[in-house]
Amino acid sequence: MTKLLINGIVFDMYGTVVDVGAVAKACKEVAPDPIAFNKQWRAKQLEYTFLRVLMEQYRDFWQVTGEALEFAVERFGLQMTTGQRQRLMEAWLLPSPYPDVAAALPRLKEKYSLAVLSNGTPEMLSSGLERTGLRPHFQWVLSADAVKLYKPSPKVYQLALQQTGLPKEEVLFVSSNSWDALGAKSFGFKVCWINRTGAPFDALGPRPDLVVKNFDELTNVL
Amino acid sequence: MTKLLINGIVFDMYGTVVDVGAVAKACKEVAPDPIAFNKQWRAKQLEYTFLRVLMEQYRDFWQVTGEALEFAVERFGLQMTTGQRQRLMEAWLLPSPYPDVAAALPRLKEKYSLAVLSNGTPEMLSSGLERTGLRPHFQWVLSADAVKLYKPSPKVYQLALQQTGLPKEEVLFVSSNSWDALGAKSFGFKVCWINRTGAPFDALGPRPDLVVKNFDELTNVL
Repeated sequence: MTKLLINGIVFDMYGTVVDVGAVAKACKEVAPDPIAFNKQWRAKQLEYTFLRVLMEQYRDFWQVTGEALEFAVERFGLQMTTGQRQRLMEAWLLPSPYPDVAAALPRLKEKYSLAVLSNGTPEMLSSGLERTGLRPHFQWVLSADAVKLYKPSPKVYQLALQQTGLPKEEVLFVSSNSWDALGAKSFGFKVCWINRTGAPFDALGPRPDLVVKNFDELTNVL
Repeated sequence: MTKLLINGIVFDMYGTVVDVGAVAKACKEVAPDPIAFNKQWRAKQLEYTFLRVLMEQYRDFWQVTGEALEFAVERFGLQMTTGQRQRLMEAWLLPSPYPDVAAALPRLKEKYSLAVLSNGTPEMLSSGLERTGLRPHFQWVLSADAVKLYKPSPKVYQLALQQTGLPKEEVLFVSSNSWDALGAKSFGFKVCWINRTGAPFDALGPRPDLVVKNFDELTNVL
């Protein structure tokens, strides 16, 4: 493969840079089938971001996450106390770094300017990056909340250019979410899809420039 | 409940007015687990409409349906011949009327102007309504394709007002899709959600004015 000529790397946050395993763990407190419950919560959280952009009814990711939680609780016929709700929501503020990410970022930082661009609120991003100790690696931490839209709207990817000053063609966008990789590619970024699970890529047209299993592979290629 | 003061009813098409059971049946030809396969296909079809609006990359519902099919085939590790693909796609042109719908429409038509407003292409809608014999009941058959967006974008619901000339407050919008009922309510229509399966309503804010199990109930209330 030809080397990608890039100067900056923009990363998605949840599921890409940090692991939200704490959320899965917290689900055990309320749901008899915590894996199915968490899957439903995550799917609705994503769907609600899409729906809110389409309906032109933006609310921030914290609120959307709470609304998706309420749907999941009702869908599974569960009860949730105020304390349980709070612990489930707060798990989003307590992610862990993926081991391969923690190892790769210091190396990548030597060669490239690094940024995070996420649908999460500034508070969620700040909490997660402080807690995982990854904050010092990133020159910019950008939230879609600044434009009151969600990825994969091109206006959110545009925010990364506005804030970093990097030209579009010098940016590599990295995400483990197929729809996010697709949106970034459609916007015009060079794209690396982190396919941790061996899933098929979405069939909507543009393909990522790079597909790797994890950050070790990414670092070796760059 | 206070009677709704309405003059027109706008219906969603797939899953609301017509049953796409032919699609589920066609899946048996390619998939060992046709129910799971069909569910994946439908979920991706919906997700791809959302993604294409967000990415500002509209393609019509026929193309999106085909792309979602390709994803499902890859996801399930299946093979599909050209003939099989064609039969799966053509099943979308061969819906059946729900029995309660076929019985209710002639009665509703006596009192209200009726329209269909769907994400489907004009060709898909035309084929489905001719085949089911429901076409004569509708004064208007409207496709989101006219505005190159998908529901729940308010611009699609606006199309119904532009085309029918009805004032917003005199329209009842009827859908079995929670996200569609939500979008229509957010737009400002009076809304009836047909909840055939006893699912919870999406937790994003506005609630439908009416929730009924089927068209018999709807006709009795109006």
